[in-house]
Amino acid sequence: MKIIGELINASRKMIATAIENQDREAIQKVALDQFENGADFIDINAGIFVEKEADHLKWLVKNVQEVVDAPCCIDSPDPQAIEAALSLHKGTAMINSISLEKDRCDALLPIVEGTDLKVVALCMSDEGMPQTVEDRMKIADELVNKLLQKNVLVDNIYVDPLVQPIATKDDFGIEFLNAVEQIMTTFEGIHTICGLSNISYGLPERKFLNQTFMIMAIAKGLDAAIVNPLDKRMMANIIAAGALAGRDSFCANYLKAFRAKKFEF
Amino acid sequence: MKIIGELINASRKMIATAIENQDREAIQKVALDQFENGADFIDINAGIFVEKEADHLKWLVKNVQEVVDAPCCIDSPDPQAIEAALSLHKGTAMINSISLEKDRCDALLPIVEGTDLKVVALCMSDEGMPQTVEDRMKIADELVNKLLQKNVLVDNIYVDPLVQPIATKDDFGIEFLNAVEQIMTTFEGIHTICGLSNISYGLPERKFLNQTFMIMAIAKGLDAAIVNPLDKRMMANIIAAGALAGRDSFCANYLKAFRAKKFEF
Repeated sequence: MKIIGELINASRKMIATAIENQDREAIQKVALDQFENGADFIDINAGIFVEKEADHLKWLVKNVQEVVDAPCCIDSPDPQAIEAALSLHKGTAMINSISLEKDRCDALLPIVEGTDLKVVALCMSDEGMPQTVEDRMKIADELVNKLLQKNVLVDNIYVDPLVQPIATKDDFGIEFLNAVEQIMTTFEGIHTICGLSNISYGLPERKFLNQTFMIMAIAKGLDAAIVNPLDKRMMANIIAAGALAGRDSFCANYLKAFRAKKFEF
Repeated sequence: MKIIGELINASRKMIATAIENQDREAIQKVALDQFENGADFIDINAGIFVEKEADHLKWLVKNVQEVVDAPCCIDSPDPQAIEAALSLHKGTAMINSISLEKDRCDALLPIVEGTDLKVVALCMSDEGMPQTVEDRMKIADELVNKLLQKNVLVDNIYVDPLVQPIATKDDFGIEFLNAVEQIMTTFEGIHTICGLSNISYGLPERKFLNQTFMIMAIAKGLDAAIVNPLDKRMMANIIAAGALAGRDSFCANYLKAFRAKKFEF
């Protein structure tokens, strides 16, 4: 299971302030905390700073990678900003995200073409947000094929089927879950990923619902997630679900995490 | 989701003592507590009293049904003991369980034939415990067909794919989960059920693992469970997973349970 630490996102006030003040220490602490609690990638998002997004992403890459030995997940829809961030990045970054929206797709494909970059392929098109498994499979099929044609390896593609809130429609959860399963069985060797907090929008005990939904998604095959690695129950859920899903040889990760007493079992 | 309350089991010391002393009040309290916390069926098991099992089951049926308006799940491999318990039972009981073991199957089929009884069909045969999805499907197929031939409605059949510990073999969890999914899609209108505490045998934080595995099983289609309804986190998991799986119209059960403040969200 690949963990993408989601906390360095400028939509969070504390991060926006740190970026504005160029507060290296604050950003580096958040990066390090996430890394030490299991993040494989550190997501960086400076989307609220429209004019300065590229500069801020470069600053984030530089400062994050100064303290953690992990790649970044460059979280932007803007190809120029992504290229700026990549120019300073060490190792193999993840791009979050390409979609089937024409402008975004056309601009991002040349950037990932023939590279080793990992790419989040978001199931969204100019026709809007997908609702059913079929909607998602149609977009995934087209998007994955476009990436494969540009010599992106299937193992570098992380399809995000796009979570929508169950408070809006009863079957939004199960349609997402079944899409995860179908993507994993249709494209051999591919990955699925998501940020899942939208699932609980409009309902009480959102954190609990998000934690529960993560376990369900892992049961259906999800193998990467954009989460808060400091959420000790979430991380315990991910580790336990991985073992229960047969992805943890001799339950070694589970036992190691249990002994480290870092998470909330 | 059907909940079978598992606490009235004579393998628990407190229950064995209550049965031996014919302590009506003690048994009735356990029955009522489970019912009030969401049990649809009250499991009764007096298996440790080999000679007196039938008498004790009758006593349990009578005293449980005196205080709760719910059917029992008669938990015994012995056809005589089951028939004795049924003789006093009001409403439609569940029988736990028939299997493909020849003696057990031959003796129990005539009891359920043409009735409205609900039947747990355990995936076990004289060849032993199943390990893979295929092992389970082979047994389920034969057993379900035997029941259908005896005019048991598919809606009254609850297949238990039989949980085995992941500490024994990494893929015992996922093979069980995939069997749940395959049973639910192969036999339209059927149910799946399990007692799942075996999954965590030999590992630390068993309660947490059991709670997590329950969510995964619901994601794969499980729609009945033999659990402790007084486990507030387990019940919260079941209710939340039901809503996330699209089985809770307008999240009404989830919201009701949240407002009742009975469970641990």
